[in-house]
Amino acid sequence: MLDGQTVIRADGRKVDELRPVRITRHFTDVPEGSVLVECGNTRVMCTATFTAGVPRWRKDSGLGWVTAEYAMLPRATADRTDRESVRGKIGGRTHEISRLIGRCLRGVVDMKALGENQVQIDCDVLQADGGTRTASITGAYVALVDAMRWAEKHKHIRSADRVIKDSVSAVSVGVIDGKPMLDLPYIEDSKAMTDMNVAMTGSGEFIEIQGTAEHRPFNRAELNTLLDLAEKGNKELQAAQQAALAQD
Amino acid sequence: MLDGQTVIRADGRKVDELRPVRITRHFTDVPEGSVLVECGNTRVMCTATFTAGVPRWRKDSGLGWVTAEYAMLPRATADRTDRESVRGKIGGRTHEISRLIGRCLRGVVDMKALGENQVQIDCDVLQADGGTRTASITGAYVALVDAMRWAEKHKHIRSADRVIKDSVSAVSVGVIDGKPMLDLPYIEDSKAMTDMNVAMTGSGEFIEIQGTAEHRPFNRAELNTLLDLAEKGNKELQAAQQAALAQD
Amino acid sequence: MLDGQTVIRADGRKVDELRPVRITRHFTDVPEGSVLVECGNTRVMCTATFTAGVPRWRKDSGLGWVTAEYAMLPRATADRTDRESVRGKIGGRTHEISRLIGRCLRGVVDMKALGENQVQIDCDVLQADGGTRTASITGAYVALVDAMRWAEKHKHIRSADRVIKDSVSAVSVGVIDGKPMLDLPYIEDSKAMTDMNVAMTGSGEFIEIQGTAEHRPFNRAELNTLLDLAEKGNKELQAAQQAALAQD
Amino acid sequence: MLDGQTVIRADGRKVDELRPVRITRHFTDVPEGSVLVECGNTRVMCTATFTAGVPRWRKDSGLGWVTAEYAMLPRATADRTDRESVRGKIGGRTHEISRLIGRCLRGVVDMKALGENQVQIDCDVLQADGGTRTASITGAYVALVDAMRWAEKHKHIRSADRVIKDSVSAVSVGVIDGKPMLDLPYIEDSKAMTDMNVAMTGSGEFIEIQGTAEHRPFNRAELNTLLDLAEKGNKELQAAQQAALAQD
Amino acid sequence: MLDGQTVIRADGRKVDELRPVRITRHFTDVPEGSVLVECGNTRVMCTATFTAGVPRWRKDSGLGWVTAEYAMLPRATADRTDRESVRGKIGGRTHEISRLIGRCLRGVVDMKALGENQVQIDCDVLQADGGTRTASITGAYVALVDAMRWAEKHKHIRSADRVIKDSVSAVSVGVIDGKPMLDLPYIEDSKAMTDMNVAMTGSGEFIEIQGTAEHRPFNRAELNTLLDLAEKGNKELQAAQQAALAQD
Amino acid sequence: MLDGQTVIRADGRKVDELRPVRITRHFTDVPEGSVLVECGNTRVMCTATFTAGVPRWRKDSGLGWVTAEYAMLPRATADRTDRESVRGKIGGRTHEISRLIGRCLRGVVDMKALGENQVQIDCDVLQADGGTRTASITGAYVALVDAMRWAEKHKHIRSADRVIKDSVSAVSVGVIDGKPMLDLPYIEDSKAMTDMNVAMTGSGEFIEIQGTAEHRPFNRAELNTLLDLAEKGNKELQAAQQAALAQD
Repeated sequence: MLDGQTVIRADGRKVDELRPVRITRHFTDVPEGSVLVECGNTRVMCTATFTAGVPRWRKDSGLGWVTAEYAMLPRATADRTDRESVRGKIGGRTHEISRLIGRCLRGVVDMKALGENQVQIDCDVLQADGGTRTASITGAYVALVDAMRWAEKHKHIRSADRVIKDSVSAVSVGVIDGKPMLDLPYIEDSKAMTDMNVAMTGSGEFIEIQGTAEHRPFNRAELNTLLDLAEKGNKELQAAQQAALAQD
Repeated sequence: MLDGQTVIRADGRKVDELRPVRITRHFTDVPEGSVLVECGNTRVMCTATFTAGVPRWRKDSGLGWVTAEYAMLPRATADRTDRESVRGKIGGRTHEISRLIGRCLRGVVDMKALGENQVQIDCDVLQADGGTRTASITGAYVALVDAMRWAEKHKHIRSADRVIKDSVSAVSVGVIDGKPMLDLPYIEDSKAMTDMNVAMTGSGEFIEIQGTAEHRPFNRAELNTLLDLAEKGNKELQAAQQAALAQD
Repeated sequence: MLDGQTVIRADGRKVDELRPVRITRHFTDVPEGSVLVECGNTRVMCTATFTAGVPRWRKDSGLGWVTAEYAMLPRATADRTDRESVRGKIGGRTHEISRLIGRCLRGVVDMKALGENQVQIDCDVLQADGGTRTASITGAYVALVDAMRWAEKHKHIRSADRVIKDSVSAVSVGVIDGKPMLDLPYIEDSKAMTDMNVAMTGSGEFIEIQGTAEHRPFNRAELNTLLDLAEKGNKELQAAQQAALAQD
Repeated sequence: MLDGQTVIRADGRKVDELRPVRITRHFTDVPEGSVLVECGNTRVMCTATFTAGVPRWRKDSGLGWVTAEYAMLPRATADRTDRESVRGKIGGRTHEISRLIGRCLRGVVDMKALGENQVQIDCDVLQADGGTRTASITGAYVALVDAMRWAEKHKHIRSADRVIKDSVSAVSVGVIDGKPMLDLPYIEDSKAMTDMNVAMTGSGEFIEIQGTAEHRPFNRAELNTLLDLAEKGNKELQAAQQAALAQD
Repeated sequence: MLDGQTVIRADGRKVDELRPVRITRHFTDVPEGSVLVECGNTRVMCTATFTAGVPRWRKDSGLGWVTAEYAMLPRATADRTDRESVRGKIGGRTHEISRLIGRCLRGVVDMKALGENQVQIDCDVLQADGGTRTASITGAYVALVDAMRWAEKHKHIRSADRVIKDSVSAVSVGVIDGKPMLDLPYIEDSKAMTDMNVAMTGSGEFIEIQGTAEHRPFNRAELNTLLDLAEKGNKELQAAQQAALAQD
Repeated sequence: MLDGQTVIRADGRKVDELRPVRITRHFTDVPEGSVLVECGNTRVMCTATFTAGVPRWRKDSGLGWVTAEYAMLPRATADRTDRESVRGKIGGRTHEISRLIGRCLRGVVDMKALGENQVQIDCDVLQADGGTRTASITGAYVALVDAMRWAEKHKHIRSADRVIKDSVSAVSVGVIDGKPMLDLPYIEDSKAMTDMNVAMTGSGEFIEIQGTAEHRPFNRAELNTLLDLAEKGNKELQAAQQAALAQD
């Protein structure tokens, strides 16, 4: 069905093949959820902090809140990136990604079941090789589930399963040299004509689609191929999430 | 084909109907391009500033650059919004939208034909009633063309037509109460389950797709309906752009 | 009486002649007061936001508060000015003008009659051709009156007329090539030896006088001529304010 | 001539009497000019820093530049004021006063005679009891002269006397309980209906007039009385400046 | 015992000799404690502000709080230093010294006896010639005592003597050209191989030791000699503190 | 010699016993030096970035430069700490520690042998359980050596051994309930009366001593015991550094 499957990529993968995924739970000790997610050479530490109570604007609503912050360590990249704390302001890219991660997780959370409690997700990129925002979503979901299990155990919420309505993962797809491909590492990402990040639920629906064609517009047919690839990738990522969550 | 066309909306429109569009060129006198775009009650002033030379990182590349900034006046909204200059930092939403507008315009510009010149787009929302980011893109394109015509006339570039590879416009679509609809005013936007902004070229291809389902995921079928609506809306917006640009 | 009246200026005006004034009320829909004021090519959008309650330091005083913020859109000027939100701080000139506008309006407001309510004035310059701060004061007064009428109608205050003790307008005067002149456009302002902004009440008294002689000091006689010009100009501006406020 | 001279003020002064003025040159050792100016209980340390070269925008103009910064130490006031460095931004009042001081000094400097050199004035208020901005101007002038003498001695400029075209001092005047008065301490300043700062040259001309009537407008007659008082006060301050500069 | 005593320094002092110390109480009028401390050419103005109540995190603890802020005036140094308020952020050195001063003073305060009251120490360097942080500690102690006497007199605390458990002073020591020396002026400080600041109580114990050997490590024997010098210097500084506090 | 050795601590260690140390080199792939250092539960990722060239103020000196930045991930601590990038400024503690790390490393680097090259050290705390600043120094030294070996291999410097004059490590010591102890975890650190961080070279000399007695002053005898403990601890840490560096 996907016509590009005979192309072999720089790292030997087929066009519809994910990079190896590794999800390590309890990566650090104190957070309610702490996950190291690795997608190829991309490594992101995702923590979920559970706090009783919600921000002021949400008080007395009976509803909870989930928010996320994304950041890169200075040497996650080949060239050192200045710290945003040193520059005194957060850049547009960081803001954009933090907001994306937050929306994706809120998309699978039942705020009523969460009650007036807050979860803060932190995604810190230790090493960046493309797909850091999608890896963050995939890892953050696992950290969120762990935090909900902790909250259930400590009687802050009735049931983790009722808070988490569905699972969510995300993957990048793109068109490189005219070929649609799944899960782009940095080298491919930087020459993609079209680049799309797709977050999907375990039941196969979309939470977020962000497609950008700064270099060459894409047509409806290409879009459909990209969505097919994203669907395949997300299914596999969700299997990895479930496998990780099954261990204890 | 679009099954919701018999629904009548609060403002009397059909589900696949745009709000009235008005594009006023030369809205102010000094900018190289200055446009007031009105989509229903949403009003955005878009200016395009042409400057010879490019930022340092782009020097000696032979290529130009296009960038955009978006902002809201404090009383564009029903409740007054504090100025970002007073708060001392730019919020995530502003960053996100500024970057989106920039990418969309760069998607139709031939940077080589532009040469080492820069265009800065400013989109300032005078009144906000939903769809400010898509109206900004639609209006900014017209301001950009005017700036290119100015630059051609003043011999800064060879040909405006060669710089502008295609036109671009954008429109919002969303699912309200289960019904896909075109061009959401604030009242609809705020209760949309799914919300999507779609930027397309005059030749009918996609530049940006940003779909968000914070409140309820969407499936492939809904996605397709939304894209059909967006295609219809963008075609009409592009007709309005061409009509405005034809007058002089 | 004014000895310079035979001089003809670049724009054909006499030395004691105002530029054409236009005051458009209800320029946008949602603010309690929304005015576009045009003095020649200078165009400022002035909104007045009424909010029940006062800042913390003013609580339980029985008194209201009026404050103002001034800003320029980036392409209000011939060369683009960077946004203060992007630079992360407000410049001295902006601060100075915001404070001036606030003082002028407070000078005609009975804070007791306003009660514990706040009015926030926003003056955003769409196009700048000299005299933006004085145009802002002139326009803001009209927006303030509209906001008070709205507040009276919505029973937030007893009587708009009792809150507004007097009208206030402002105009610039200056000495160009040794000649005192009224209402300076940018081209005159930039070569003025002495530059003065004068805000006056409808009853002909002074609220603010700010005279600056960075380039050549001025003597008492020149000062008197400038004040005569300012008096004449403010009377005419107040007539325009009253005419605008009479329509509904 | 001044009708209020029989009123006796809280500190025993007549309405047209200055507070005791003390000007200490060489207050600290390293700056090119360093002055402690005391007007009653108000004490301001004024330093003038001479630097060869001018800011970038002024390069190759053959002209010099003079700029000023004003600040209060935290306990200059009865209640401690938070440091602006700690708050991370400079307030409007500080900006306004810094700009005022700079303009006043530039008003008496021949930029051509200064050549491409810069003088930075720093006025730091050690103790505030009203009139800190006018005391700053009066003291800064003396520091500026010392810096010019230093520059002449070190061959950076040809002649201090040619750079300094005239002297400048400033004083506050105001209307308290309907009585115009000279040189207001804090207790009078805080209940002034009208408050005016007047900077004048040694030859009796105006450099700056800033009159504010936030609490009650003033008429032309009151203005004239205030200007008479300011003229008298400035003459006496200039005598004190000359006396200080005569010692060495 | 100290082997370097025959070395004569640039300013004629012996290696174990302090610079002349002068402590002026009531340097300004309004603060609860206001001290000018001079150590050679280094001059620091130290004020202590007493406020009833403590910061939120300390409420209902029954304990007081003491905090300190340090800053340099722009021309305290040979070259002008930009204001941190203008740069919009506080530098690392300033932070480091402010924290040091705060810790030293808290080290001699009985927080229970202080009760829920706060003292804010401000140390502003008028002239810097080495040892500004140690002079700040020495002067701040005197200002703190004055503030406690004021608070006792005004019945905010039971007894100043019970709040102040011991006195504290500080001095710098260092190794210059292999010779350990006491109380370094700037010229010595800048060529010190090892540099140490030592804060001690009146009873001869240590509150802070900060030794730095960026240029050449030091051994245990050198450390001991430096501590002997610091002990001698601090005893003499404490005598000066007691002498100043004995006058009234 | 150390009299407290029979006390057993909460984690079963003797008073003069280090926590288990683990040093993992090449923790991430791209930096020139990348080390994970673990001291008990404290985990810090230390990277060293080598860049040809030095900051402007150091140009044409023939000398290199080494600088360091320290930061905590938000959930390194039991309670989440807000990001300094979000707060828009770097706190005093962060500044203080960054500067300390930089000084310690510069203390063992021959800047001439480094030539006009820069090394930027980044220490990011993944998990904090006391002693994060000393662990950072210990780990950063290893990352620095790796970066120098890389630079030697890539011909940027002649010899890594000549740049690195000596090794450096650091450890905390403190007095808890009157007992001097080595290497404090958070639980001990928070109740320490006296707290000292000691950085030493491989040849047994001191680079930095920072002792603080906010809660109870310490005498010379206690100081000596603490320094003995620090000496023992640093010797063991240096053995671990050498062992790690011996592997390849």
